[in-house]
Amino acid sequence: MAKALTPDFFFERHPGKAAGIAFELESILYSGQSDYQKVDILQTKNYGRVMLLDEVIMLTSFDEFVYHEMITHVPLSVHPNPRQVLTIGGGDGGTLREVVKHPSVERAVLAEIDQKVLDVSREYFPEIASGLDHPKSELQIGDALDYIQDQENQFDVILSDSTDPIGPAVGLFEQPFYRNVYNALTTNGIFVAQSESPFWDPEIVKSIHENLTAIFPVVRFYTAFIPTYPSGMWSFVFASKGLDPLKNMRHDATATFQESLKYYAPDVHHAAFTLPQFFKNLIR
Amino acid sequence: MAKALTPDFFFERHPGKAAGIAFELESILYSGQSDYQKVDILQTKNYGRVMLLDEVIMLTSFDEFVYHEMITHVPLSVHPNPRQVLTIGGGDGGTLREVVKHPSVERAVLAEIDQKVLDVSREYFPEIASGLDHPKSELQIGDALDYIQDQENQFDVILSDSTDPIGPAVGLFEQPFYRNVYNALTTNGIFVAQSESPFWDPEIVKSIHENLTAIFPVVRFYTAFIPTYPSGMWSFVFASKGLDPLKNMRHDATATFQESLKYYAPDVHHAAFTLPQFFKNLIR
Repeated sequence: MAKALTPDFFFERHPGKAAGIAFELESILYSGQSDYQKVDILQTKNYGRVMLLDEVIMLTSFDEFVYHEMITHVPLSVHPNPRQVLTIGGGDGGTLREVVKHPSVERAVLAEIDQKVLDVSREYFPEIASGLDHPKSELQIGDALDYIQDQENQFDVILSDSTDPIGPAVGLFEQPFYRNVYNALTTNGIFVAQSESPFWDPEIVKSIHENLTAIFPVVRFYTAFIPTYPSGMWSFVFASKGLDPLKNMRHDATATFQESLKYYAPDVHHAAFTLPQFFKNLIR
Repeated sequence: MAKALTPDFFFERHPGKAAGIAFELESILYSGQSDYQKVDILQTKNYGRVMLLDEVIMLTSFDEFVYHEMITHVPLSVHPNPRQVLTIGGGDGGTLREVVKHPSVERAVLAEIDQKVLDVSREYFPEIASGLDHPKSELQIGDALDYIQDQENQFDVILSDSTDPIGPAVGLFEQPFYRNVYNALTTNGIFVAQSESPFWDPEIVKSIHENLTAIFPVVRFYTAFIPTYPSGMWSFVFASKGLDPLKNMRHDATATFQESLKYYAPDVHHAAFTLPQFFKNLIR
């Protein structure tokens, strides 16, 4: 019954679980160790190029557009005039690539701990890394937990484009960090974070909800289909000082570049906040 | 780099692809061959019990609720008074379990080719198979392609709960079958079919769209998160003789049993028809 993988297959066992996804490798383009993590770039048959950090899939050229469009355009279509935007993590540049599309954005800061991620992205994912070298972009290489402590009333939107809450990223899912985010935001500020899978890690989603509702008056989850993340059902959390993700939405926010988008659209924004019953029950 | 699976892991290589999902086995509960296909029932760590047909995942106790609720309650909440409902395939009984919940339903026919699927479902998935033995249910063991030819103006709703369009089910995705479905439907009739993944098999989705629009005046796709199907993004197609899946929706259709549902709700019904841009482009 059990069918072994051939040596040409890579198996990503989802962290802490007895299941995962597997795919055929064409070649290993890069394999190295940074100061923080193991970094691998794979060429695959069905998923294009894949970036692994500590053997966990971070992005694939097959479906990266979903994650990067949905983490960015939802909050930037709600804030009335987002000028300063901070991205935490996201060293690959995909989130910046989407942030700088918004005409109102003047300054797009990236706070990423690992220079190596930027380097390999520039080399192996030029169409993703393009955001890194945009004139609006400002790169802060270092620990985002430190960076954000010194910011006050500075950013209109803060995006947490982090790894899973294990290892170095665990602090990015806790109340002290959320409090610093709150302080770093301007009056109308919005915070959006990738918030794992409600199918796969319901307890993490619950804990994110509890930690954020202790600090922000508005906390709402939304979802997107991301095939190469555990379960394919990914969630994001929207937290703000008052703006509502649906009532305050600007339907024309992406109009000037809508043609470049493959997932996000104003109707998709709206529908993404409708959660299946089991997800509603989880955060009730 | 390539990490082999241990003998305790089962790897489902998605049909025709160089990728798939893998999960740890606790035990193999049943393994046999019917007249039509290989049938296996596995006990797994993360997905509960799993039914394989020809080594492809049909259902898991982890996420079967999504598929069965979404294939059923969408059309049955649009038809104003669904009394006679035909399910094609679906020998496990999960779709029938949901169909018979609707108070208006008087007769729920199942046309399934393989008696073995009913037998193993009754033994290993009693909570799914319960629909098979409901007083409203009528079991027709045989080829649905033959059964439907003799039906005219008979069913208010027809559900195609089929396997993938390879092997025996291929005829269930072609125009001659869709024409027979049209004839078997009553004046207000609705047809819903599982229609594969737009991420994973865009060409199949396109072909289903073309074949159905040649026959039905209303054809609309909707989606659901199903972790154990390829890509986790699954689609269903809604085709009708005139009823619109949103404008004609009865918001109270599931009210008497809404508490039993873990995915479907009226707002979920509505949101499910909003397709990401790449899916809209696919069927433009």
